[in-house]
Amino acid sequence: MVRKVDPINFAEKLSMFSEHWSPRVIAEMNDIQFKLVKFQGNFVWHDHQDSDEVFIVLQGEMEVGFRERTVAVRAGEMLVVPRGMEHITRAARECQALVIEPRGVVNTGAAGGSLTAQNDVWV
Amino acid sequence: MVRKVDPINFAEKLSMFSEHWSPRVIAEMNDIQFKLVKFQGNFVWHDHQDSDEVFIVLQGEMEVGFRERTVAVRAGEMLVVPRGMEHITRAARECQALVIEPRGVVNTGAAGGSLTAQNDVWV
Repeated sequence: MVRKVDPINFAEKLSMFSEHWSPRVIAEMNDIQFKLVKFQGNFVWHDHQDSDEVFIVLQGEMEVGFRERTVAVRAGEMLVVPRGMEHITRAARECQALVIEPRGVVNTGAAGGSLTAQNDVWV
Repeated sequence: MVRKVDPINFAEKLSMFSEHWSPRVIAEMNDIQFKLVKFQGNFVWHDHQDSDEVFIVLQGEMEVGFRERTVAVRAGEMLVVPRGMEHITRAARECQALVIEPRGVVNTGAAGGSLTAQNDVWV
């Protein structure tokens, strides 16, 4: 198999979809997936029991709520949500982010609901 | 242990060191490290036998040379270098990037030499 070693342009990939809370895989490193997501509004409270989760904000600003406090993450910043820590993502205006976590992690954890996204959708 | 869940600002962290080819860890996700690096000039040919390696360019432009061709990676782009694939990084002017790979990967692979950096230096 010839591995693709072309650069991946975030803006170009982001222009290819508009749905909110609908992660699109753009790359894999070992078993880790790199997914672009557009957020707007409120997600659902959930956690990921088996993995930490990274958000890198590319455009705009998102809020990550924890049970004790809420942090704002802006373009040019990243946040590591530790495994097992309940959190909720929110964005007053559209926020564009890169989410990094192992293949197979479900976006809503065990919380489920209508915002649960299909995995492994590439763009 | 209380896990730190504060946002990490790339520009702030980048302002805290100036050495080239000297990765600084800013975060970990499971066994994966996120490292800021400033490149200028030519690195050395090497590969990483046990892991893919991700570069996300934050500022400027870098070249990644492979044996058959060279690709340019610019701010707002990422590149996955597959495990075992020989490569060399170069930058005509200073380039600032986020490198993502498992803890313990040596920057020069088995090539060694004076550009081999100490691992696990946090900023």
